[in-house]
Amino acid sequence: MSLIVQKYGGTSMGSVERIKNVARRVAKWHAAGHQVVVVPSAMAGETNRLLGLAKEISANPDGRELDQLAATGEQASSALLAIALQTLGTPARSYTGWQVPVRTDSSFTKARINSIDGSRVQADLDAGRVVIVTGFQGIDDDGNITTLGRGGSDTSAVAVAAALKADECLIFTDVDGVYTTDPRIVPEARRMNVISFEEMLEMASLGSKVLQIRSVEFAGKYRVPVRVLSSLTDPMIPLEEEMSSGTLITFEEDQKMEHAVVSGIAFSRDEAKFTLLSVPDKPGVAYSILGPVAAANIDVDMILQNQSVEGTTDFSFTVNRNDFARTLELLKNQVGPAVGAEEIVADDKVCKVSIVGIGMRSHVGVASRMFRTLAEEGINIQMISTSEIKTSVVIDDKYMELAVRALHRAFGLDAETPAADAQQG
Amino acid sequence: MSLIVQKYGGTSMGSVERIKNVARRVAKWHAAGHQVVVVPSAMAGETNRLLGLAKEISANPDGRELDQLAATGEQASSALLAIALQTLGTPARSYTGWQVPVRTDSSFTKARINSIDGSRVQADLDAGRVVIVTGFQGIDDDGNITTLGRGGSDTSAVAVAAALKADECLIFTDVDGVYTTDPRIVPEARRMNVISFEEMLEMASLGSKVLQIRSVEFAGKYRVPVRVLSSLTDPMIPLEEEMSSGTLITFEEDQKMEHAVVSGIAFSRDEAKFTLLSVPDKPGVAYSILGPVAAANIDVDMILQNQSVEGTTDFSFTVNRNDFARTLELLKNQVGPAVGAEEIVADDKVCKVSIVGIGMRSHVGVASRMFRTLAEEGINIQMISTSEIKTSVVIDDKYMELAVRALHRAFGLDAETPAADAQQG
Repeated sequence: MSLIVQKYGGTSMGSVERIKNVARRVAKWHAAGHQVVVVPSAMAGETNRLLGLAKEISANPDGRELDQLAATGEQASSALLAIALQTLGTPARSYTGWQVPVRTDSSFTKARINSIDGSRVQADLDAGRVVIVTGFQGIDDDGNITTLGRGGSDTSAVAVAAALKADECLIFTDVDGVYTTDPRIVPEARRMNVISFEEMLEMASLGSKVLQIRSVEFAGKYRVPVRVLSSLTDPMIPLEEEMSSGTLITFEEDQKMEHAVVSGIAFSRDEAKFTLLSVPDKPGVAYSILGPVAAANIDVDMILQNQSVEGTTDFSFTVNRNDFARTLELLKNQVGPAVGAEEIVADDKVCKVSIVGIGMRSHVGVASRMFRTLAEEGINIQMISTSEIKTSVVIDDKYMELAVRALHRAFGLDAETPAADAQQG
Repeated sequence: MSLIVQKYGGTSMGSVERIKNVARRVAKWHAAGHQVVVVPSAMAGETNRLLGLAKEISANPDGRELDQLAATGEQASSALLAIALQTLGTPARSYTGWQVPVRTDSSFTKARINSIDGSRVQADLDAGRVVIVTGFQGIDDDGNITTLGRGGSDTSAVAVAAALKADECLIFTDVDGVYTTDPRIVPEARRMNVISFEEMLEMASLGSKVLQIRSVEFAGKYRVPVRVLSSLTDPMIPLEEEMSSGTLITFEEDQKMEHAVVSGIAFSRDEAKFTLLSVPDKPGVAYSILGPVAAANIDVDMILQNQSVEGTTDFSFTVNRNDFARTLELLKNQVGPAVGAEEIVADDKVCKVSIVGIGMRSHVGVASRMFRTLAEEGINIQMISTSEIKTSVVIDDKYMELAVRALHRAFGLDAETPAADAQQG
């Protein structure tokens, strides 16, 4: 008997029929003797519907009230799933975030989980019930409802799994695992049977939408084995088959093939780049530029400061494309004049492409192979950023698909190649 | 400065535009210096939508999960109203039933309020905020969400008003007050400016849909002045005008005109009648019949046992028409054989018509005038039930409208008559 946490996304919960299918799948696991906790998202479209109503009323609605509003979506879908399970004869009970409770900080609409009390859930599991815990939400110290932000149900599931010391956390979704890159861009992309936690962390942070980055961080912090798998299979697929399907995010590196240097290609079009030209190069200039940006709650990703020439330097950084207008205004009206920049160059037509792989640690020349591949395609690199297991470049976004395909091929990730086959190990 | 509780029904909260109108009305009261607590229903149609989803999954869904599900409707509408108020510059905060908390028993889908802790709400009021409390719901001692049943938001509002010792509880609805009878049946029906609590209690229990019966009971128990008034007026109607509009339910009987013998005509088509013929007349027979009915959770309304003839008697009672099939089955298969009834006569084509008035206490001959009026219209009376301030009859339901109109006229309730004018006092 194992304790399994299963998360189902909004698409999987998108209709009464689909909720019944989720119930059939969960009941199968329960019938096989497993203790099962389910963390469902709201029915597809429901969160957008609710937030849309708020937006009709106010351009800038209050965070506390938005969370009171949005949290209802998961509460409803969870109750419906409980009813569907009971109809199958499977004892089930649903709990909201505050009923568990899932304790968070008070950052409305983007709260962080502080702790989860698993005792009530565990008591129900021990009594033979399936327990359903609403994803996406919690309660702060003042008894206010909070939500974790978009994709927060992934984090809820992993956090619940950590609190209950679950044997595995299954993230059921509309893709059947983690791919070497997005199959919509590279048809030859291959599903990985296993990916290391660190690679998954980079993939998630670099634009792979399969798992929310914070859920991966949580999995790493509490060493929760997470498996991403499809909810679109027949719910009655044999348990043994389902247990080994999808992609397992593992903490045991030796499960990986040694010669897989690069595991995947991540990319993101949500990028915008700014350059301040001819800034006087003196101590504190980076802070003078990025301090006000951070204060405006704008996340900065890559940062690049050129060699000083005649006492001045060019300073570049990237932000999320959604923050483009706000950042530009801030630079023009405040930061630029303050630091004496000669000119401000803004570009919201850039993208970021990254290669990720634990093998990069022990293999030299990986980055240079990346640069050579891009050069052969005539793609100019605007910025470069590296870490131990990834190399990212900023390029003109019209080259994004070309770059991803070329790199996928260059690093032997395409299907039917020995390297790609090795990935499946 | 007064402390006012305002309840808005689902129609008043039925769209973003209507929620904005509610906010304008509430903001007006707040701006005039009143402390305001608002108790909204779910947006019109939302509760039905949610329960419909549950019904699609299960013919007999679990009560606890139904309450988890249904409670989301008020939580969402309350948050939207808070946002709308904030947009007008009026500080506001919404609370769910469990956040207040509103403590109830554990009778899911029809819970009863045990207590309300008003301290959190009062603190917000004292800080200058409008407080929104979700109607319809509470929390039981085990931390489960409960709902109060259909129309429960009325009860929530009155209970909150009682807990806060509010000066008045305003029930905003889509009619502009309590009428002598339903204007859809009797166009001459008149709105009453004032009605006594006891009359309102009878009107509500006898089928007037303006206020839920339990909310009236609550108002009586805690002596909360309740006013029923229209939410369809211009939200910016002058406060003084609004404060004296609609119908006030009062505990001060001398406000009423002495010569108003009958205040209103109530009626209900939700009736079904059963008669067990030739039941042996011995001690305990009533219990033998009604015990199993009560055990099946079927509410019995009128009960009538005829004079014994040759050791047997006929025994009749009425139930809600929704329980017709269940009751019939119970009588045929279980109760009838057990008590030795010769025959069971069932009729789901009956209705109940009642005259209500505090004046009946001190005026003789009111009931007989009722019977004479019905006789003059050729309407046969099947059952009669009386209390201190009402007389009800069960008749063939095809005569319902005719009976209501005849009685409305006979007791001088039609508009333009002196008696009806006196009602307006």
